[in-house]
Amino acid sequence: MQYLDPNRVSADQYINGVLEGDLVMLARALSLIESSRIADTSLKLRVLEGILPKTGNALRVGITGAPGVGKSTFIEELGLMLVEKGYKLAILTIDPSSQRSRGSILGDKTRMDKLSKSDSAFIRPTAAGSSLGGVAQHTRESILLCEAAGYNVVFVETVGVGQSEIQVRNIVDYFLLLMISGAGDELQGLKKGVMEMADGLAITKVDGENIHKAKLTQTTFQNALQYLVPASSEWQPKVFTCSAFNKTGIEDIWDNVEQYFQQMKDNGYLEHQRQNQRLIWLDDCMRSEITRHFQQINKDEGSFERLKGQVQKGTILPNRAVVQIIEQLISK
Amino acid sequence: MQYLDPNRVSADQYINGVLEGDLVMLARALSLIESSRIADTSLKLRVLEGILPKTGNALRVGITGAPGVGKSTFIEELGLMLVEKGYKLAILTIDPSSQRSRGSILGDKTRMDKLSKSDSAFIRPTAAGSSLGGVAQHTRESILLCEAAGYNVVFVETVGVGQSEIQVRNIVDYFLLLMISGAGDELQGLKKGVMEMADGLAITKVDGENIHKAKLTQTTFQNALQYLVPASSEWQPKVFTCSAFNKTGIEDIWDNVEQYFQQMKDNGYLEHQRQNQRLIWLDDCMRSEITRHFQQINKDEGSFERLKGQVQKGTILPNRAVVQIIEQLISK
Repeated sequence: MQYLDPNRVSADQYINGVLEGDLVMLARALSLIESSRIADTSLKLRVLEGILPKTGNALRVGITGAPGVGKSTFIEELGLMLVEKGYKLAILTIDPSSQRSRGSILGDKTRMDKLSKSDSAFIRPTAAGSSLGGVAQHTRESILLCEAAGYNVVFVETVGVGQSEIQVRNIVDYFLLLMISGAGDELQGLKKGVMEMADGLAITKVDGENIHKAKLTQTTFQNALQYLVPASSEWQPKVFTCSAFNKTGIEDIWDNVEQYFQQMKDNGYLEHQRQNQRLIWLDDCMRSEITRHFQQINKDEGSFERLKGQVQKGTILPNRAVVQIIEQLISK
Repeated sequence: MQYLDPNRVSADQYINGVLEGDLVMLARALSLIESSRIADTSLKLRVLEGILPKTGNALRVGITGAPGVGKSTFIEELGLMLVEKGYKLAILTIDPSSQRSRGSILGDKTRMDKLSKSDSAFIRPTAAGSSLGGVAQHTRESILLCEAAGYNVVFVETVGVGQSEIQVRNIVDYFLLLMISGAGDELQGLKKGVMEMADGLAITKVDGENIHKAKLTQTTFQNALQYLVPASSEWQPKVFTCSAFNKTGIEDIWDNVEQYFQQMKDNGYLEHQRQNQRLIWLDDCMRSEITRHFQQINKDEGSFERLKGQVQKGTILPNRAVVQIIEQLISK
């Protein structure tokens, strides 16, 4: 795919293209940051640094839920509403189970048929890459690129499997958890800790004969939330019900999101949270880079893994392993 | 305090002393690992490596709860019971609010008056040091030393403030959360996520006119737990009630702990969890060592903090900061 060859596009071309909102250049820049080629590292950084001053202006919203909860349908309805309100919406979807994204672009566009035809919406799957850490890393950078391209709402959609929710929680401002009501297994797919990461919860598919069950589920979750909310929290999460089919309840959920941003901007919590998220990002970078460097220096790529295995089994102390790692880093 | 000068005691003397269960040498070894002197680093490691083959045999139990929940009284009663059953018990207490531990040793011994007189119990406060990471690091190493000295139950007690619970959760096998019942504020002091880290919950001070309230609280928590338990969990936490004053309920709690160890040893989860904990330990070491080396290399100790501050404010990208850190590490 020659047109993606980063050598053919300069940092300035990327930067200007993205800042002008050029969709082709935005897509290329997004591919660039997903590149795992060492040769692209420095170009990536220059592009990101070039657009950095124009970032940070979007409402960053994470949306998660177990498979079958109706995420795409919900996001499409909410998205269409936002576009109508005049927002420019970017949707980054993460599927931790897929290793490469290129194949699923069409799939996602088909899933959100009406929305993908709108000029004000941009839908992009993030390649899961080799690690969950990689997903978070790419998505953080993707958010910045979308913001620089003028999108003022960014959705990060993730499937409620694996550890992806925690990763997403740490890169968005508002985290929305979608759930379905069901005969006794309302909590199916709901993992330890996910509920209390949410700033808002929405029960989907509340239409037809689901309505009565959904009200019960809503009460149950609202009660459960009481036991999860920290005394010092700046925000009290609520449980909403909605139906993408009947187009009900969606507006209330968005009102809650807007209210969150209003309040959290005013009291400084939004910036506080973003600052903490940048430190988490720094930590993540530090760890992945150290590992990468160590592996590079030790031509034998297995030696880091071997040390790790010994630590895991308890045959050497972590302190000793780190001493060896650092020594090899420095002595090179 | 000349007697603590590590230069006067060799690694072998430490190792042999600890393995023989010599209390003076154990106390000195615990002081050694809390030392922040660079000069002690290599001695520390040699001592720990010397005792490593004799570690891992204790039941490691974390105990937490908000101030006022009656931790010391509970631990004393439980401890006396264990001593009577023939266990050798080491108690490591962590108070994240105190910067130095030396002063509180007497305080703790007074708090657990009867237990501190037992030959089968050893009580030791861990110095909080400069960081919570430091607490976890010291405590991990303290557990190993106590195990090598022949203690087959180790309690790690922490005050339910700050982030210390998460740290402790990652270094013990069974995590016990103490709570009190109260008029509407049962959850006071209970932070987001702590409840679901617990393998067992105990409502304390269930005596006199508290008994009725406590039963309600027990039901409430037992219900709340249903929403927190992951489908794949190997263990179903229970809520207990007890009174250290009336000496009731304590035996049931310990039975639960023993049952946990029996089951988790049999199904391999205990070893699995400890292996994961060692990897977390490796991660922690890596981060703190990298930071330390970076600071050492940059004579100007502020430069790492300055980079971190810039990342936090969003003026430079974490990726860039890490590139600079690594370059300075390697170019030295």
